Amino acid sequence: MKQSLKSLSDGITAPRGFAAAGVFCDIKRLGTGTGSNKGKKKDLAVLTSMVPATVAGLFTTNQVCAAPVKVSVVRAAQEIARAVVANSGNANACTGVQGLKDAETMTQMVAQQLGIPEREVLVCSTGRIGVLMPMDRVEEGIVAACQALKESPENAHDAAEAILTSDTKPKEVAVEFKLGKRKVRIAGMCKGAGMIQPGMSATGQRPAATPLHATMLCFLTTDAKVDSAFLKQALNEAVALSFNRITVDGDMSTNDSVIILANGLAGNKLIKAKGGSATERDQFQAALNHVTLKLARMIVQDGEGASHFVTVRVNGAVSNAEADLAARAVANSSLVKTSWCGGDPNWGRILDALGYSMATIVENQVDLGYSLPGSNKILWALKQGQPTSTSLASLKKIVKAYDFDLHIQLNQGKGSAIIYAADLTEAYVEFNKGE
Amino acid sequence: MKQSLKSLSDGITAPRGFAAAGVFCDIKRLGTGTGSNKGKKKDLAVLTSMVPATVAGLFTTNQVCAAPVKVSVVRAAQEIARAVVANSGNANACTGVQGLKDAETMTQMVAQQLGIPEREVLVCSTGRIGVLMPMDRVEEGIVAACQALKESPENAHDAAEAILTSDTKPKEVAVEFKLGKRKVRIAGMCKGAGMIQPGMSATGQRPAATPLHATMLCFLTTDAKVDSAFLKQALNEAVALSFNRITVDGDMSTNDSVIILANGLAGNKLIKAKGGSATERDQFQAALNHVTLKLARMIVQDGEGASHFVTVRVNGAVSNAEADLAARAVANSSLVKTSWCGGDPNWGRILDALGYSMATIVENQVDLGYSLPGSNKILWALKQGQPTSTSLASLKKIVKAYDFDLHIQLNQGKGSAIIYAADLTEAYVEFNKGE
Repeated sequence: MKQSLKSLSDGITAPRGFAAAGVFCDIKRLGTGTGSNKGKKKDLAVLTSMVPATVAGLFTTNQVCAAPVKVSVVRAAQEIARAVVANSGNANACTGVQGLKDAETMTQMVAQQLGIPEREVLVCSTGRIGVLMPMDRVEEGIVAACQALKESPENAHDAAEAILTSDTKPKEVAVEFKLGKRKVRIAGMCKGAGMIQPGMSATGQRPAATPLHATMLCFLTTDAKVDSAFLKQALNEAVALSFNRITVDGDMSTNDSVIILANGLAGNKLIKAKGGSATERDQFQAALNHVTLKLARMIVQDGEGASHFVTVRVNGAVSNAEADLAARAVANSSLVKTSWCGGDPNWGRILDALGYSMATIVENQVDLGYSLPGSNKILWALKQGQPTSTSLASLKKIVKAYDFDLHIQLNQGKGSAIIYAADLTEAYVEFNKGE
Repeated sequence: MKQSLKSLSDGITAPRGFAAAGVFCDIKRLGTGTGSNKGKKKDLAVLTSMVPATVAGLFTTNQVCAAPVKVSVVRAAQEIARAVVANSGNANACTGVQGLKDAETMTQMVAQQLGIPEREVLVCSTGRIGVLMPMDRVEEGIVAACQALKESPENAHDAAEAILTSDTKPKEVAVEFKLGKRKVRIAGMCKGAGMIQPGMSATGQRPAATPLHATMLCFLTTDAKVDSAFLKQALNEAVALSFNRITVDGDMSTNDSVIILANGLAGNKLIKAKGGSATERDQFQAALNHVTLKLARMIVQDGEGASHFVTVRVNGAVSNAEADLAARAVANSSLVKTSWCGGDPNWGRILDALGYSMATIVENQVDLGYSLPGSNKILWALKQGQPTSTSLASLKKIVKAYDFDLHIQLNQGKGSAIIYAADLTEAYVEFNKGE
């Protein structure tokens, strides 16, 4: 689907009728009061639509899921919502009954401040697992954020900063495109960095035989007028092609959440799941896919310690599900990831990982090659399982690039899958071993 | 099964009637001739029994399996074998038709030198994948090794050195115990270090629903008199409790092989799979289990870059298979492994990994604790999913130890599993990124 998308420099408040703010309230109890927030990374964000919006959300399928996920999964299943509160510094996961109460209290506080129903507020958290939320700080933060967005609604960049944890930079995308005669906008912000291999569903229930595997949070806004059924379906497709296709370290988080609010203020003709214009459905979907893929790639690029961005493309598998298993086995292999770190086209390790994956592989039928992004020229290292005459030096040239594509053709069927992956570096280990 | 096992300082030639040798033949083509092997790590070993021996073998279930595995899997299925040739420096994997010919030629060369049938010689390789064997060097090596063992049969330590790759030290175990009135010996040598998470079977076929996931090679000898059926069954049990329960980096190799030869020279009454003394079956099994577990633990302890040895004990799973899935999810999580590297009892990451495993977990029913090996005192960090009053400092004291046990009680059923795991360190990344 080709269409003209205009990039906007605004963040999450680019679509009409959204307000956002981000504040520092010392959720990690670093010892500095809420007041003196100069130079401190913001840690609490509130996002709201001026008018009721249709809502959709997808959440981690981890059996150990955080309290805010338990609250939001129910509220995202509704047709309508109005606001989201999100904090970094504490995941509110493995916090038992008190954690669940705290998550609900957070939505209650926002509801009170904004004068909207509690059940129309969703909540997300990210940070350390197993520590109770410092609710005194959280309350100060919510009051301050709601105050800030009432005074001046467009603090998108503050909000984008407040949700970050080990990320080195904020991640924001906003686009404008035409639906009929109306200009419509979709925007998003997200965070990632570690514990990244999302496998999200609308219910938090794991679909059978689905690959599983971040804390990543993503918030999307649009002023398009779309019904709840279509919004849920569109978000499903967009996430299946983006966030559920990335891996930094193969660990699926307890807190992964993607939430979208669509408030209809663009005034386009209602897009519905059934009936109406199929073209407009496709146009909205294509724009949403663009935004989510761009954000998902940013997460991998800013993965903890990551020094390479690799697009693993598996084709010719028995099924799409097997292609996915093959691609993830490669993208999550410690030996493959460390070879990428070294810029080493060690295809032996890749074949090894394919071989132990649960996908059907026949060694002497595998083709394996490398290309630079945007180039049509694939340098094949293996054809039918046998090394080609391609020189190691020319393969190295590609694999030493920051960003390259790995092409695996299994020649077993028509299944295909793409996984966007980071390498494994000393910096990752150093960061995560703590101390 | 309690029995008296005497440790012997000899290696693989401790049992009566075995001869072994290890030589340097420059398989990596470092440029030094076979002759001048002073100071060079040996790279080719030959092991043989003076008399025909019963044989059993277990091999990688990786769909991409090395040429020597393809040859040996067939020969280990026979009742009788006489010799094994093994090299380091080249895996002879992903080497196509020529690779298979080369593996067969290696067995032919040994057969010729030792004057035994070709089909009674097994072959194993370990090293770089995708490079053809330097057969001129290999031939020189085989001739030299066979000459060496004819001149002096007991060069166990040379053989143990010749099979090493990135290992920092040789791994040998030998024990003596009584079967009836006879003293019987079992000995073994192995190598490991990286690409370690074996999942081996006798046919190289993957059992359905089995966890999969090293190059490790292990050669075992015994002078016990056991029939082929019992030897195969006993090796299966021993490997299920040892090599198939370890993980360094979660990567299952193309070359994993465990081979045992039993030549009967101890003169004990034949131990058979069916009939005869059940006690003697149990005694042999217990001694074999002791040897394989000791060797398997040495592989993890000498894992690439490893700085901690962690025994993950999962109990209370729905089934043993689910316990295994849970234990492997924890033992292979990059975030859990890096936290071990840092000596950090980050149980949040452990719960996260349990949650995304395919085992059934109920967060508020999980108990999680730590102990020092050999101690009965478990310090519980979590009970019923909730942090206990145990201080972080006392947990850290255990997790900072080189060797500790992690206890996970799921409280869902009676399934249990143990996995022996290494941590993930900067040294692992540095070593494997190459260059």
